[in-house]
Amino acid sequence: MMRKVEQHTESDVTDAALRQFVGYNMKRAFNVLQADLARTLEPFGLRMLTFSALSMIVENPGLRPSQLAGALSVERANVVVYVDRLEEAGWVTRAPCADDRRAYALQCTIAGRRVYDKAVAAVRAHDRRMLDGLRAVEIAAVKKALARIEGRG
Amino acid sequence: MMRKVEQHTESDVTDAALRQFVGYNMKRAFNVLQADLARTLEPFGLRMLTFSALSMIVENPGLRPSQLAGALSVERANVVVYVDRLEEAGWVTRAPCADDRRAYALQCTIAGRRVYDKAVAAVRAHDRRMLDGLRAVEIAAVKKALARIEGRG
Repeated sequence: MMRKVEQHTESDVTDAALRQFVGYNMKRAFNVLQADLARTLEPFGLRMLTFSALSMIVENPGLRPSQLAGALSVERANVVVYVDRLEEAGWVTRAPCADDRRAYALQCTIAGRRVYDKAVAAVRAHDRRMLDGLRAVEIAAVKKALARIEGRG
Repeated sequence: MMRKVEQHTESDVTDAALRQFVGYNMKRAFNVLQADLARTLEPFGLRMLTFSALSMIVENPGLRPSQLAGALSVERANVVVYVDRLEEAGWVTRAPCADDRRAYALQCTIAGRRVYDKAVAAVRAHDRRMLDGLRAVEIAAVKKALARIEGRG
């Protein structure tokens, strides 16, 4: 005889066991944040990681792809893809390095700086939207906790 | 003449512009947390998403893969991969659904329950480790902020 198994409707599926963990709550929140960030950056032709790469190149002119990979903690191979996209868009250029002919230094163009300035203003508004309704003391606690967790790595 | 470009050492690369955004800090913290969680789960033959799936099946016996995908906000195709791994390990079984012959209901086995109980204790210790040094009021602020952000989705 076939054993009767319990059936669930969508609404009675619970995740209480996972909810006790900060990592699960962080992942769920980050998914929402990332989706909002993607919508925020889309009009500028940017995505989360191309925006991050562009920001790092604006802040650190002459940065090498390996340094960019290290600073963002992403794979070198992925960084090359983002840099290619930024170069194709005309926002970033590669210049040869004086001390290592195999390496190259990244710099943003005037057009790259222009799109960055517009995008960063939109990302600032997105960031405020994400934290809207939280008190300054709560935002400070979040930043402290995130720094503490990151420091364990 | 070749234009001289600025050179950076690893230590003088900065990410101050990105640090202003909670999303960037959250992503950096989550990377560290996820790496620690992977090390925590590895001795049990589990990974973040197989552990999450197993936890959901323990909590919701009879859960269908489509419900699991919805509850965890992951692609149905990915859920099938995790369920296959759990089934191969002998931790989860599929039973046909009485009301829909194409669907199946997931249940955990005694061996699955045993590995889950051990893994969840290890994940609890990991979670405490991640939050170690934070005061209760700070942990509460983090949880509130994460819930607030998730609620914007």
